[in-house]
Amino acid sequence: MPVPDVPEIRPGDDLAGLLITAAEAATGIEHHDIWVVSQKVVSKAEGRLVKVDPDDPLSHKPLVLREAKRVLRRRGELIITETHHGYICANSGIDRSNVAPDVAALLPEDSDRSARRIRDAVKGRVGVEIAVIVADTFGRPWRRGITDIALGCAGIIPVTDLRGTEDALGRELHVTEVCVADELCGAAELVRGKADGIALATIRGGNESWFGEGSIVGDVVRPHSDDLFR
Amino acid sequence: MPVPDVPEIRPGDDLAGLLITAAEAATGIEHHDIWVVSQKVVSKAEGRLVKVDPDDPLSHKPLVLREAKRVLRRRGELIITETHHGYICANSGIDRSNVAPDVAALLPEDSDRSARRIRDAVKGRVGVEIAVIVADTFGRPWRRGITDIALGCAGIIPVTDLRGTEDALGRELHVTEVCVADELCGAAELVRGKADGIALATIRGGNESWFGEGSIVGDVVRPHSDDLFR
Repeated sequence: MPVPDVPEIRPGDDLAGLLITAAEAATGIEHHDIWVVSQKVVSKAEGRLVKVDPDDPLSHKPLVLREAKRVLRRRGELIITETHHGYICANSGIDRSNVAPDVAALLPEDSDRSARRIRDAVKGRVGVEIAVIVADTFGRPWRRGITDIALGCAGIIPVTDLRGTEDALGRELHVTEVCVADELCGAAELVRGKADGIALATIRGGNESWFGEGSIVGDVVRPHSDDLFR
Repeated sequence: MPVPDVPEIRPGDDLAGLLITAAEAATGIEHHDIWVVSQKVVSKAEGRLVKVDPDDPLSHKPLVLREAKRVLRRRGELIITETHHGYICANSGIDRSNVAPDVAALLPEDSDRSARRIRDAVKGRVGVEIAVIVADTFGRPWRRGITDIALGCAGIIPVTDLRGTEDALGRELHVTEVCVADELCGAAELVRGKADGIALATIRGGNESWFGEGSIVGDVVRPHSDDLFR
């Protein structure tokens, strides 16, 4: 369910409070709701904004290298980097949509922490246990079109381990770790939309087995040793 | 919405008819419903099954190479291939879960065509215009956990082109082609589940702009010239 009417967020704003107000008006807040929050409002609230030349569409490019651990590929203006957090994405996740023309938004410093802060604020102020996912839009190799994926989370186990359970015919499932967090972000994108600037979606009715403690950087970002495409 | 009670599918079965019966009982069939159908039942109905040694968990490996255009990476038993269709995935998409122990399932020959057949059958027999997506479970580089993605589709434009539209602050959105089809498959996986063997999900209330003609192989599978990671 989309949660409209989250106001324009500025650095230092009480993001959790503004999300709570918007959610209470739109969908209510219930036990084990999952909030999918756009990275953009998290970055804005945390002051992760940098001045750029509004007349130069490439003026944020030096920031791309500053935010990168390394550059994986480069073609023309397209730079695919590994960020300091370990995400692999275009332009170190920096973008200029849904921000003022003279500003570029960087990714949050620690999106898992950002998600925990919102989750804890909802618990403290509303007394309700929810899960929070911070979502951003990434491209993929091999497939056209972007999809929303999770940068950080709190209150949810991002990868569900089905190994050891049986399939419908009673055979053991082998490599079946499902990244529920990314699928939830994609589902939320379908109702949030890109152009609408809807910063929050509420997902209700999630499987009880999804809830628990987890981290995107710890549980989803693949370590180098485990990676064949870097 | 999950559609339970699709019976076990055998080669030559009238898949569309069995899906129609199950959907009519579970969710009904309405204009612009989106059906996300598991690749596994499509492969079974189309007879894309090959005998393997039930006692040898690696006896399907020679098929992996036969179904591949080329091998991208190899580590131990893990083989990442580009299939003849152009998908890049583990084991050429061949798997042995939810099939009999002496059988492995290959991907459909042409999943866009498989989706069109089901879409056309629903149109012809029920008189309702729906969209159909054939979904499979793929891993991703850089991120742990698998997610469901689209192998083929009919009646839906898989990548929504938002270029030229404006963001919430009135700035033009640049690279914003959203792969709605993959996000729909991920959303459907959340209700279908891996272990439950639920072959069909109905998605209702999709955005009207998503509907139209499209193809996964034509519109989503990235051509070599456009790809930085092959």
